[in-house]
Amino acid sequence: MLLTQLQQKTDQKTKPSGSLGLLEKLAIQAGLIQNTLSPELINPHVVVFAGDHGIAQSGVSAYPQEVTRQMVMNFLQGGAAINVFCRQHDISLKIVDAGVNFDFEPHPHLVQAKAGMGTASFLESQAMTSQQLQQCLEKGAEIVNQIAATGCNVIGFGEMGIGNTSSATLMMSSLCGLPVEQCTGRGTGLENKQLATKVAILEKAKQYHGPLTDPFMVMQTFGGFETAQMCGAMLQAFDRNMMILIDGFIASSAWLVATKLRPAIVSHAVFCHQSDENGHRLLLEYLNATPLLQLGMRLGEGTGCALAYPILKSAILYFNEMADFNSAGVSHKD
Amino acid sequence: MLLTQLQQKTDQKTKPSGSLGLLEKLAIQAGLIQNTLSPELINPHVVVFAGDHGIAQSGVSAYPQEVTRQMVMNFLQGGAAINVFCRQHDISLKIVDAGVNFDFEPHPHLVQAKAGMGTASFLESQAMTSQQLQQCLEKGAEIVNQIAATGCNVIGFGEMGIGNTSSATLMMSSLCGLPVEQCTGRGTGLENKQLATKVAILEKAKQYHGPLTDPFMVMQTFGGFETAQMCGAMLQAFDRNMMILIDGFIASSAWLVATKLRPAIVSHAVFCHQSDENGHRLLLEYLNATPLLQLGMRLGEGTGCALAYPILKSAILYFNEMADFNSAGVSHKD
Repeated sequence: MLLTQLQQKTDQKTKPSGSLGLLEKLAIQAGLIQNTLSPELINPHVVVFAGDHGIAQSGVSAYPQEVTRQMVMNFLQGGAAINVFCRQHDISLKIVDAGVNFDFEPHPHLVQAKAGMGTASFLESQAMTSQQLQQCLEKGAEIVNQIAATGCNVIGFGEMGIGNTSSATLMMSSLCGLPVEQCTGRGTGLENKQLATKVAILEKAKQYHGPLTDPFMVMQTFGGFETAQMCGAMLQAFDRNMMILIDGFIASSAWLVATKLRPAIVSHAVFCHQSDENGHRLLLEYLNATPLLQLGMRLGEGTGCALAYPILKSAILYFNEMADFNSAGVSHKD
Repeated sequence: MLLTQLQQKTDQKTKPSGSLGLLEKLAIQAGLIQNTLSPELINPHVVVFAGDHGIAQSGVSAYPQEVTRQMVMNFLQGGAAINVFCRQHDISLKIVDAGVNFDFEPHPHLVQAKAGMGTASFLESQAMTSQQLQQCLEKGAEIVNQIAATGCNVIGFGEMGIGNTSSATLMMSSLCGLPVEQCTGRGTGLENKQLATKVAILEKAKQYHGPLTDPFMVMQTFGGFETAQMCGAMLQAFDRNMMILIDGFIASSAWLVATKLRPAIVSHAVFCHQSDENGHRLLLEYLNATPLLQLGMRLGEGTGCALAYPILKSAILYFNEMADFNSAGVSHKD
């Protein structure tokens, strides 16, 4: 019934039927989520979860582990890409220390949610304990609750964590049932030979743990503190009826786990950007997702969310502000 | 030399090299055009040229011709999609009566540039005289000169004209050497049978005039007053060293003519959106163009320009505002 009314509303706008493409789908999705013919976007947020990975010591990344903490400092100082794009679009930005291998001084933009000084290497054990996983899921939910208290109804999630494409690759490979090689990409910029090494290391890790399909177990074994908190945050964002902006490869791996735990969540997703990271296209296909943007980026940090946000806003604005055929005196289709 | 410096500047930003994808290309393009390491976007404009087409009487469109004037009124009242998106992004919007079959009252946002009450039907004659074509090219240039006087250095062009996908189809077919059928689309929403009729009519027109490859002659024979003015405007925007935002199928057909007249112009183009209109994908391939967006829209009006503009702005902002590896104390690649 509401769907019919939303469809009628968009069809009465002064444009050929369907000619605003994905914007029309976004407007209708927002109307359904918010149960209204006049959806709105309130207090948009991007939350960047940062965490370190034991696997980062094994030669799977082009950058050293300390870059995670250095980039957190950069976020706090406002100098990273996600800072620039959030300022551009008036998006509130929160940085979460989900488990960086460094003790940060308190900072007004930093949320302290440390689950440890980085995960264990999944070459030798599970990445985290079940207690740590549970704590991360709860912490992510708690952070979303605090943001929801500001009235926010649209939230995007980003991440920073040297080594986390490796983690995401194994979560994807396990939960999608795809070979490791198809899911592995160059991350922050591996050369061909380094990429082959990364594949070999990840295959070894997958073999070590044997086949895993339970989403909790997959997250506990291969996940990161930042992706586990993001997963908990996504689940809570759904419970708080927010629109959820899905960023690139890592965020999509957290989303994959969330959908396995709670399939209904998909109604609230806006897929923002298809990353250039190998594997993301396949993952989006698996998720049956149409990303709004394909700008060849592979940065994470929630940058895809911030860049796609004005398009979501355009959808809301046309839906609420455009004239109707009747009120504007424009003739209908013959 | 400048190119090297621009490349160095983007490589020093705190992100893996190349990880901002098309944004990095846009920033470097802007730097080259503006001959600076700190490009900026000043006073962005979208100009919508409106004109009527003789061919509109022959059953090639799903909407009656009067929709052109009705939509011009809608633009002036602020109710169309392009109004909404220009307001969203602080883009100045100008509406040009290039040759609508209606006499408008003067209006502060309407530029009077009428070349006639609509073109002649290319089923019976050339769409316009060589004098009209010349007048349109000059008028388009004059409009850009007035806008350049405001300091504007980035400009997008949109159009409104019932029947103008037919016009664009024949310009494309002639100048790209492609069969009419491959270039023909549903325009504002033709059904299958109507689409077949449109193809037959356009093939007949092409046959009537015989093979044409001279860009002036193609524009004079098949063009519209709005596309001819747009073509003149694009050429002048290049001469005024502006960045030129290219919208959908119709705007790309005007651009195609402009590139034939002035191949150097391509350095200033930003292709904004790949339209859902059949033919546009092929035309973009012919132009070797990578569009920023593919949102499944097929509306024209410059809507693709307005929606892509924030992405161009993101490119300029990251390039000027992001921290460097050194200043932010972030480690380089191993």
